[in-house]
Amino acid sequence: MVAFGGGHGLYASLSALRRVVGKVTAVVTVADDGGSSGRLRRELGVLPPGDLRMALAALCGDDEWGRTWSEVVQHRFRSEGELHGHAVGNLLIVALWELLDDPVAGLDWVGRLLGAHGRVLPMASVPIDIEAEVELDGVLSVVRGQVACAGTPGNVRSISLVPADPPACPEAVAAVRDADWVVLGPGSWFTSVLPHLMVPELAEALHRTAARRLVALNLAPQPGETDGFSAEKHLQVLHEHAPGLTVDVVLADPGVVGERGELEKAVESLGGRLVLAEVAASDGSPRHDARRLASVLDEIFREKR
Amino acid sequence: MVAFGGGHGLYASLSALRRVVGKVTAVVTVADDGGSSGRLRRELGVLPPGDLRMALAALCGDDEWGRTWSEVVQHRFRSEGELHGHAVGNLLIVALWELLDDPVAGLDWVGRLLGAHGRVLPMASVPIDIEAEVELDGVLSVVRGQVACAGTPGNVRSISLVPADPPACPEAVAAVRDADWVVLGPGSWFTSVLPHLMVPELAEALHRTAARRLVALNLAPQPGETDGFSAEKHLQVLHEHAPGLTVDVVLADPGVVGERGELEKAVESLGGRLVLAEVAASDGSPRHDARRLASVLDEIFREKR
Repeated sequence: MVAFGGGHGLYASLSALRRVVGKVTAVVTVADDGGSSGRLRRELGVLPPGDLRMALAALCGDDEWGRTWSEVVQHRFRSEGELHGHAVGNLLIVALWELLDDPVAGLDWVGRLLGAHGRVLPMASVPIDIEAEVELDGVLSVVRGQVACAGTPGNVRSISLVPADPPACPEAVAAVRDADWVVLGPGSWFTSVLPHLMVPELAEALHRTAARRLVALNLAPQPGETDGFSAEKHLQVLHEHAPGLTVDVVLADPGVVGERGELEKAVESLGGRLVLAEVAASDGSPRHDARRLASVLDEIFREKR
Repeated sequence: MVAFGGGHGLYASLSALRRVVGKVTAVVTVADDGGSSGRLRRELGVLPPGDLRMALAALCGDDEWGRTWSEVVQHRFRSEGELHGHAVGNLLIVALWELLDDPVAGLDWVGRLLGAHGRVLPMASVPIDIEAEVELDGVLSVVRGQVACAGTPGNVRSISLVPADPPACPEAVAAVRDADWVVLGPGSWFTSVLPHLMVPELAEALHRTAARRLVALNLAPQPGETDGFSAEKHLQVLHEHAPGLTVDVVLADPGVVGERGELEKAVESLGGRLVLAEVAASDGSPRHDARRLASVLDEIFREKR
């Protein structure tokens, strides 16, 4: 079981998947240039650890050990000083990278500490910048960096990576090859879900794998990235960034479906079937409920076994 | 088994003691105001974590888990930026303090992570400053702070604490009360060994406990603190800071003994016996060899059982 993504979206899918299958391999974007991750990347020349940390926290168990260490790695210092905003888990991950000089070994050690229900891998072995073509009032511009992508008014049209041909993490490629399912999304579409498809070796593995592919759509458009995007528009953008990629299942919450016929058409053109299920949190926020998502995924996985 | 101290001296005694007795309780000075600890203390208003971290590292096991996490907590970031010099374990300890709002619970959690062979406790529940009376060329001056104490030329004559009556850590008091042995030193005499004796409740517990008391002398005087101090002078200073305290054993390496008769007299006046044994590292550096120290301590403890 492999999940692609980053940030809060991947946190949601991993929180659900670990309940369904026990062990998950997360393949995580390494393009963040903001906050604690951006500072560490600039100061120490390492991969941005934040999305990897959040994925590890999501894979923590529900026992006291898992809950405590999950909180510890997610904890951020608050002060008037130099540590302000740094997440503890970011510092821990980076320390292991410096000691072991091997990103995957470092993440595996932190995973062992946390008792993580699976493995967390970077999508690429080098830090990446996302370059986005943004449209505002009919005018196109190009911005670089995840922070700029998310913060520039307008809609993102497409993204590319800098460097354009980053080396994939070999363990991530192997995990995709050996998976029974690969889950894409939910998450910031252009900055957390699509970047994986732009890493050539990883994209190739995703095309070739015998695994079934599931796309979990978001519960709301994201300001500055996908304002006004319909569910089917998300799939269209996915297709544009990975031409020829077929999917088996597209999972959407009924609340995000405008024209059901349009969405079904988009899903069929990707070769898959649409599953509509209530997976949103009951408080009305655009967050996935881990238990609901787990239950729906469990059903989908069973059907295909 | 309880060990008093701080810094490298306590690291040495703990590294030996965990080999002898399996479980040790370290009671650690919280007066550091320099380096990573000093910065964290000022930025976040916490106890200085550095000596506590080093004690935890000393209690790590010799298996792969213990060795790896010991290295991780001891690892210091090196950069041109804001993290430079911070020890990872300091940040981890402080994060747990912030989350749990309880210094002892936080240290216990880090101990569980490391698989520590014992428990690490602060000597007091509040950060402390050491004030030292320093003599240089017959002139006395008073300096405040551990950094200033160690860095001011001359010999320290005496120390006091600010605040003068800090609350002891209750778990440390209980550990002293219930111990079979309390080991004082080795370590920076004025800034790591004597401060414990100035915490009233801890000093009282040390006087009253039925435990036997062992003083392990240093292998060399410390520049700026104890320049030119003989072994017996160390004991005299101890007596001045804890009048009425008796000890059962004073352990010294033959290499630090000048006038053996003088040292024996000083030991007898404290009510104890002198044990001379080669405990220095074989490379000639003024460090204790953990295995040699363990073997000598084992013998001493057996005699008294």
